Amino acid sequence: MHLERIRFQSYKDKVISAQEAADFLKDKMVVGTSGFTKAGDSKAVLPAFAKKAEFENVAITLITGASLGHNTDADLAKNNALYKRMPFQADSSLRLKINEGNVLFIDQHLSETAELLENKHLPKLDFAILEATYIDEKGNIIPTTSVGNSATFAHLADKIIIEINTSIPLNFKGLHDIFMHEKYPNRDVINIKSSDDRIGVDYITIDPKKVVGIVFTELPDSAALVSAPDKKTTAIADHLLAFFENEIKVGRLTKSLMPLQVGIGKVANAVMSGFSRGNFENLVMYSEVLQDSTFELFDSGKMDFASASSITVSEACYKHVLENFDEYKDKMILRPQNISNSAEVIRRLGIIAINTAIEFDIYGNVNSTHISGTKMMNGIGGSGDFARNSFLSIFVTQSASKEFDAISHVVPMVPHVDHTEHDVDILVTEQGLADLRGLAPRERVKVIIENCAHPDYKEELSDYYNRACLGGGQTPHLLEEAFSFYNRLAKTGSMKQKKSVELSS
Amino acid sequence: MHLERIRFQSYKDKVISAQEAADFLKDKMVVGTSGFTKAGDSKAVLPAFAKKAEFENVAITLITGASLGHNTDADLAKNNALYKRMPFQADSSLRLKINEGNVLFIDQHLSETAELLENKHLPKLDFAILEATYIDEKGNIIPTTSVGNSATFAHLADKIIIEINTSIPLNFKGLHDIFMHEKYPNRDVINIKSSDDRIGVDYITIDPKKVVGIVFTELPDSAALVSAPDKKTTAIADHLLAFFENEIKVGRLTKSLMPLQVGIGKVANAVMSGFSRGNFENLVMYSEVLQDSTFELFDSGKMDFASASSITVSEACYKHVLENFDEYKDKMILRPQNISNSAEVIRRLGIIAINTAIEFDIYGNVNSTHISGTKMMNGIGGSGDFARNSFLSIFVTQSASKEFDAISHVVPMVPHVDHTEHDVDILVTEQGLADLRGLAPRERVKVIIENCAHPDYKEELSDYYNRACLGGGQTPHLLEEAFSFYNRLAKTGSMKQKKSVELSS
Repeated sequence: MHLERIRFQSYKDKVISAQEAADFLKDKMVVGTSGFTKAGDSKAVLPAFAKKAEFENVAITLITGASLGHNTDADLAKNNALYKRMPFQADSSLRLKINEGNVLFIDQHLSETAELLENKHLPKLDFAILEATYIDEKGNIIPTTSVGNSATFAHLADKIIIEINTSIPLNFKGLHDIFMHEKYPNRDVINIKSSDDRIGVDYITIDPKKVVGIVFTELPDSAALVSAPDKKTTAIADHLLAFFENEIKVGRLTKSLMPLQVGIGKVANAVMSGFSRGNFENLVMYSEVLQDSTFELFDSGKMDFASASSITVSEACYKHVLENFDEYKDKMILRPQNISNSAEVIRRLGIIAINTAIEFDIYGNVNSTHISGTKMMNGIGGSGDFARNSFLSIFVTQSASKEFDAISHVVPMVPHVDHTEHDVDILVTEQGLADLRGLAPRERVKVIIENCAHPDYKEELSDYYNRACLGGGQTPHLLEEAFSFYNRLAKTGSMKQKKSVELSS
Repeated sequence: MHLERIRFQSYKDKVISAQEAADFLKDKMVVGTSGFTKAGDSKAVLPAFAKKAEFENVAITLITGASLGHNTDADLAKNNALYKRMPFQADSSLRLKINEGNVLFIDQHLSETAELLENKHLPKLDFAILEATYIDEKGNIIPTTSVGNSATFAHLADKIIIEINTSIPLNFKGLHDIFMHEKYPNRDVINIKSSDDRIGVDYITIDPKKVVGIVFTELPDSAALVSAPDKKTTAIADHLLAFFENEIKVGRLTKSLMPLQVGIGKVANAVMSGFSRGNFENLVMYSEVLQDSTFELFDSGKMDFASASSITVSEACYKHVLENFDEYKDKMILRPQNISNSAEVIRRLGIIAINTAIEFDIYGNVNSTHISGTKMMNGIGGSGDFARNSFLSIFVTQSASKEFDAISHVVPMVPHVDHTEHDVDILVTEQGLADLRGLAPRERVKVIIENCAHPDYKEELSDYYNRACLGGGQTPHLLEEAFSFYNRLAKTGSMKQKKSVELSS
């Protein structure tokens, strides 16, 4: 045991095993745990609870920051240990349970969970399970690789279990900036005017009376899977970089652009890597997650500062960050997710938001969450927080996927809307970029089909639109065939009309 | 002429006729005009321009605060004087042109137009036409019954035409609070912490070099049409008031509730009138529009203060307000619409937002704008600004309309989404109230159908959902029949299945 990590005298006898901690969690309880994009999650107690659920009928409502690492969400799901889950997940086994209707999933804007809890629009938390680097002399905790909703959970939960992760160096102290809102009606401003502004304290306040157990673990975060840019993602990045370069040329942006938010994934990664190549300087991030590409941009001297709610990187990058931690530390801040994703701050700083869409329609409505309109993929995450309030709202996706490009990601009408046309400025696929600023819906159609759709689908999309126009409207549609792409996919395995399948195969 | 209303010496020779002013406006120009929910609009120059367009081929891009009064939008539309129109309208002739595809309409969040203009995401403004109470000693203007986007138009337009409205009393000076953002990257906070906070000046700054003409008018705003509450709207109001009373009882709200935003219309009016009856006190508004009901609540002593971007009232109410203006003046502020609708302020104050939906679906997605998914009604207005960032986001509508309740306003899937399920907390029809807080989509369906749907449609909605569940999913749907209600309406004139039509008639 590493008792130097428990600096608050009266906690010293609270050390228990993960199994003992898991036994506190009873059926139907509401539990909030640390963990945001696989970083800083509970690696001892939640897995022990999942194990326990293999043999007992216990299921909890689990509220996290965002996705959990390792196989925690999978194991919880498989053992039926989850009654309800929010606000985000990214696990294939859990996804299966959700889509079967066996886990109730609430898909939330990541900025809002803390608000809903504080305002009592969600049930009271029985337990908080919070990963910590160490416990300070007053009983407060220093978070690890993420902040997520941990400060809110600590504030609201009846009882708290602390998981001290000894793999996290003690010098993580000072990395975080924990700000908690005043209660209504006395709320003050969130006084962040620059990505590097600190407005809070560097620990999470804990009421010692709530702490029922302290568990030690030494398991590091699961590593992020970073895929190398491929032909498509590089093309998307190139279109976007060319767009930025033109914006600089016409005087709408400077070489420092505006603070960047970039979603997780292959495309985002390629875009970020692209910034290293381009003629940019003094870039700044105000985002949710610091990824490998963030540190590459630090190393290339292109980026000055990055604010987020977590560090989620590959194994190699993590090693590199730890080895050079004191050098990086002054360049980053981890914040609670209701602050990293705050509408107020995003609008004030003027963020350029780059997020991945599953698909979009000819009018620019974006589906980020539901496969064929019904099956949950991961969740909306922070994309809505940023898209709505950004200086520029950009969505990227491939124009088509699967063998023979059987699935078009540009469709007549998306069967699930996460971001309405009001919140979408720029769409990019490997085919090209559609700049929708200042365009009415009927104008949007043309640039979206022309610039973004896969060639095999352009004719049918245009034909749909032209026939829809006969019926008139601000947003012409043919409701009887708005989802014909999906119905065809369900029947034939491809969104293509028979003729084009033959042509392309 | 009322030259005491031009207190800036060098403007005195700029007085011209409306027709002369209209002649400045050339084909393809981009023009920003005052006017928000029929208040404070251009009543001389724009109508003169509409008249001119009867005989000349001239069409402009017209950007306003929101809807215009009198028949201005209608006359402009009929005479083909509009190429593009944003961000909102509420006129039946213009609507027709929009839906024919003859006027390009951009439907925007009302908070965003000023942002888009300042950030150069929209074309440069050639002209601003701004209604004023008078011109002060420095050449700046005192607005009239609305602020809208006027301060931004004045800032960005190449040239300015001022319309002095002599029907507005001089003591309107002091009613407005004009705050302009610092330029990126130096933006500061919007320092409003209470509905009655003043953070700006009480005039709109004008660069005298830009002023090319001053026109006098004495025409008052068009009066608001206020419909008396009927059986349905009263039922909606009663459900909502009972909900608030229960929230107070369980301790989630106090008798002062939270600052209120209430959309325009019959239902909103009934809800506001309901507050006079209920056990509420010290109410405050932070809204877009001050309506008759606002002044009723002042008079009944229930409301302490109201902030908005315009005063839009009936003729009788307007007379009453003018007669008692000095008494009301301390109780209200008119702000620019990017401040009245600011995400930052809405979240900070914790607004209860009550807006009208056209329809919603069984999962709680809301359509506020498009009839049958294609035809524009008015526009999203400020509903999205408030719904997204509110403390509680409430949407109201009737459960069914037309003879034999031929149109259900609760449908399997809305064919146009303005507000996603993420942004909707409470739905109310005359049938009842669905409290969606903390509910996953599959849970939402049950309370929405049970509490809000019209009895004639409940069975079919439930049947749709049950069959959709066989296919699984987070949000079960049958894409082939998701729009069957609309297809049936188009074919038979009713959304009802044949059987239920027979039963009910």
